[in-house]
Amino acid sequence: MKAKLAKATNGVNIDRMKETIDAVKATPDLGKFKFRIANQWVKCGENRSEVLPFSAGGTEIQHQTPLTLLADEPDVLLGTDTGANPVEHLLHALASCVTTSMIYHAAARGIAVEQVQSTLEGDLDLRGFLDLAPEVRRCYQGIRMKLSIKGDVTDEQLRELASLGAKYSPVYDTLTKGVAVEVSAERSA
Amino acid sequence: MKAKLAKATNGVNIDRMKETIDAVKATPDLGKFKFRIANQWVKCGENRSEVLPFSAGGTEIQHQTPLTLLADEPDVLLGTDTGANPVEHLLHALASCVTTSMIYHAAARGIAVEQVQSTLEGDLDLRGFLDLAPEVRRCYQGIRMKLSIKGDVTDEQLRELASLGAKYSPVYDTLTKGVAVEVSAERSA
Repeated sequence: MKAKLAKATNGVNIDRMKETIDAVKATPDLGKFKFRIANQWVKCGENRSEVLPFSAGGTEIQHQTPLTLLADEPDVLLGTDTGANPVEHLLHALASCVTTSMIYHAAARGIAVEQVQSTLEGDLDLRGFLDLAPEVRRCYQGIRMKLSIKGDVTDEQLRELASLGAKYSPVYDTLTKGVAVEVSAERSA
Repeated sequence: MKAKLAKATNGVNIDRMKETIDAVKATPDLGKFKFRIANQWVKCGENRSEVLPFSAGGTEIQHQTPLTLLADEPDVLLGTDTGANPVEHLLHALASCVTTSMIYHAAARGIAVEQVQSTLEGDLDLRGFLDLAPEVRRCYQGIRMKLSIKGDVTDEQLRELASLGAKYSPVYDTLTKGVAVEVSAERSA
């Protein structure tokens, strides 16, 4: 018996990717996902989230191991610095999504890369959060992501790689174009 | 000698909070922060970020301990499920920011709470990412955050609490109204 070798580019199993695309094309509801977390406040700026099972095309799937995400604020923002703060987590969400989107779409086009690194920086003016200046937004004023890519690619492929992440990343799309967020509260016993 | 007891509500040091507000009011540049991360691709949908020192009012500050954030995709999305995926990290950024913003602004108003929990759910249609349907956005179609609050608060205070997080949270503001994100790429040796 001979095992079939999986064809992979950038570590992405191309056969499974094609199967996924064909399955979602044939049955659009298979592409409907729901991701979920549960967050628990600890004290001051400290809180933690458990990643909950997600829904993939109507099937509930549990992560293989428990995934816990911490958040805290540094001392200068009155916290105890036991974890990255929310806006640093936001940069990680963006970095990881742009990188993964680029890697997957590069694989689909047969473009192999060897190394990908990026640095991200976001500007925040605390006057927004502190309600000291109505013209200052509470959010990041701007975010810059600089990718550094190693691989046997042409200049044209490098430009294409740079555009793929931003073009396909769900987090990039969410951050740059906005999304509806409903917040509700109830009293617990 | 008698140590001065810090006055705290929700674990937030109120004296230090007032000092911060006064300092930023007097010198607006003290409110200017830059947060930064460096991300490194591992393979397929796996990558990790190191949280870098941040700039607070012109001063560079290092976190007290190294902070590393992992990302991966679950098996159904071709990954090895060693970490939360980018859009789950995005939910954590939102949950932690809305919670911390509520806690700090409640403390400033003298509203004490005992417990805060929340669950978040976001809807994503993979057809956007897979380029199968031009009308489907790549990002979350919508996000719901349900807060559950325990404390000796009036119904009016509960409603106020529910609104504080969304009103002041930088991540909520970023997600709902959008922000400019620049992505650039260079070749590394």
